[in-house]
Amino acid sequence: MEVELTQENLARALNLVGRVAGTRATLPVLSNILIKTSNQQLGLAATNLEIGVTHLASAKITKPGSITVPARLMVEFINSLPPSNVSIGTDGQKLLIKAGQFQSTINGVASEEFPAIPEVKNGRGLQLPAGELKAALAQVIFAASGDETRPVLTACYLHAHNGALYLVATDSYRLAERRLMKLGKNDPQPELLIPARSLAELLRIIDDSQETVELAWDDAQAELRYGQTTLVSRLIDGKYPSYRDLIPKKGEIGFSIARDELLRITKVASLFARESAGGITLTIDEGQKEVRIHSVASQIGENTSAASAEVQGGGEVTLNSRYLIEALGAINASEVTFTASGKVNPCVLSAKDEPDYLHVIMPLRS
Amino acid sequence: MEVELTQENLARALNLVGRVAGTRATLPVLSNILIKTSNQQLGLAATNLEIGVTHLASAKITKPGSITVPARLMVEFINSLPPSNVSIGTDGQKLLIKAGQFQSTINGVASEEFPAIPEVKNGRGLQLPAGELKAALAQVIFAASGDETRPVLTACYLHAHNGALYLVATDSYRLAERRLMKLGKNDPQPELLIPARSLAELLRIIDDSQETVELAWDDAQAELRYGQTTLVSRLIDGKYPSYRDLIPKKGEIGFSIARDELLRITKVASLFARESAGGITLTIDEGQKEVRIHSVASQIGENTSAASAEVQGGGEVTLNSRYLIEALGAINASEVTFTASGKVNPCVLSAKDEPDYLHVIMPLRS
Repeated sequence: MEVELTQENLARALNLVGRVAGTRATLPVLSNILIKTSNQQLGLAATNLEIGVTHLASAKITKPGSITVPARLMVEFINSLPPSNVSIGTDGQKLLIKAGQFQSTINGVASEEFPAIPEVKNGRGLQLPAGELKAALAQVIFAASGDETRPVLTACYLHAHNGALYLVATDSYRLAERRLMKLGKNDPQPELLIPARSLAELLRIIDDSQETVELAWDDAQAELRYGQTTLVSRLIDGKYPSYRDLIPKKGEIGFSIARDELLRITKVASLFARESAGGITLTIDEGQKEVRIHSVASQIGENTSAASAEVQGGGEVTLNSRYLIEALGAINASEVTFTASGKVNPCVLSAKDEPDYLHVIMPLRS
Repeated sequence: MEVELTQENLARALNLVGRVAGTRATLPVLSNILIKTSNQQLGLAATNLEIGVTHLASAKITKPGSITVPARLMVEFINSLPPSNVSIGTDGQKLLIKAGQFQSTINGVASEEFPAIPEVKNGRGLQLPAGELKAALAQVIFAASGDETRPVLTACYLHAHNGALYLVATDSYRLAERRLMKLGKNDPQPELLIPARSLAELLRIIDDSQETVELAWDDAQAELRYGQTTLVSRLIDGKYPSYRDLIPKKGEIGFSIARDELLRITKVASLFARESAGGITLTIDEGQKEVRIHSVASQIGENTSAASAEVQGGGEVTLNSRYLIEALGAINASEVTFTASGKVNPCVLSAKDEPDYLHVIMPLRS
């Protein structure tokens, strides 16, 4: 292999694919990056067997070839170089790198040992608006579960419903739902369980340089193509909970309030909720036209924080403060609406100015 | 106790003293902050028995009193409040806090259980220029040892020498020396071993609001007063190594180079030096008028980085790359000079534009 490309292009490619390479991989070659010429481009790829990311960088290929090298060293090394042209070549299982006054040899592993990254062939496809998708991912992914014993909940549920495409995640204690775009009757109607981790990686890849993300899928995997970068993720097998039935159509009580205000009093209350697993009690006071949040820790003390709100129906509900803080963090609108329906039914957080987003939080039994 | 003060003043005071409060203190009250009225000011104090920090905040004292409360909760709580007036009062061993629509009770401990923070009485004193001291601390502290088995090396050595005041730290592998100011013959001539940790705390306190730091000391402790904040530190007992004899007056070989250039090639080389405990070899090439840094890791590969330099005498020396990176980070001048004297004698890093600073690094045996 003999290739020349700019440090900027190589660094960008490495940073895009490098994060997926494992550090404690059972298969040592998985901590390497595959570097492989592909026509007049240089392909870089990494995989952890769940996610594979490949990127094609502009390069001058003098002699085709391929090798794999340790991801961490390669990424750090190329990132440390000043902007310049970088020549890379192979000598057996060594990668030789020259850039200005820097010369390095990195010991590699033959590319034949690198696992093939699966491709989606003859799958169905959709074009997703990149900006909307990026916003949706940031609003939804964090609500997925990290608990591998219920794999379905570690996924985000990308699905068609009533002529629209929705992205949903839940860990069974809270749920985030974002309507992404309209779907035509003749569009493919996806129903995919994509690991939240894969979508978190996609979120890092979307950098506003492209307008669309091309989604393609078959029964086993989804492919998300963003410009010269492609992420392939395995799909999770299973049936997503029919969550729509659980969301109250209309809350019995509720209030509208400045998002920042509610976030602030929730954060203050959470400081006193550490002993009680984050439990805080919201009192919606119709007479005072305010919301009070109370938290108490027998050891350290207690707190009540209040804020004026537009109240419709008074009452009390106990929530995990972390869930409320994270939900408020996912809403961009300046005004939010919170509704509750008794002490055990789900509470709903929404915003008039963000009609496509909904966040549901299960109360704690107080 | 009944006190009123602004959230800004209280937060500032808490942030100044709070860091010293222990999280895994053997004496539980050491994780608390002492809050105590003092004439028309509110005094806050924390100590870990090695360092004590007190701060006097402007406040309206209606009723004098005192209490101690958990540092972490108090700091986080007050930091979370919006700018406003804060009323604090005591009810037995509870601290009551009101600020706008926030009301809290924090369970405290009687102030009688809080250890007395030692004072320096009848000690000698010096006025130190705050800006110079801050710069000196940043250049020196990091070279102190973290190894408690040689307590003397965990100190910074603040001492008079030939009519000037010097700050020095060494871990026996590298040494940083900064000349701070001239001393008159009639000035007290300090010779103090102040724990580097205490000075790191002082570094965080100096915020450019004051011109001087007032230093006072006796045989057991040093007091550093900066505006309304006072840090008292115990002194370390022992004799500091007579390091001056070990520094070569003039190196046999050496080079001058742009600081950023040397830093960059050292950082790149360090990536390949992880297997060899950070060891990199500098080749000073008089013919090529360049410095080359070579590092090799049998497992992962090797690197040579070069940079043009003004060379005086050629040769080779092997160093720990971390020490060289940290030393270069402590120099602000754009041009640095490096000298070596054989493979085992100390190397000296200095800058023409910073004549008061000197950094010495012991070579590794290559």
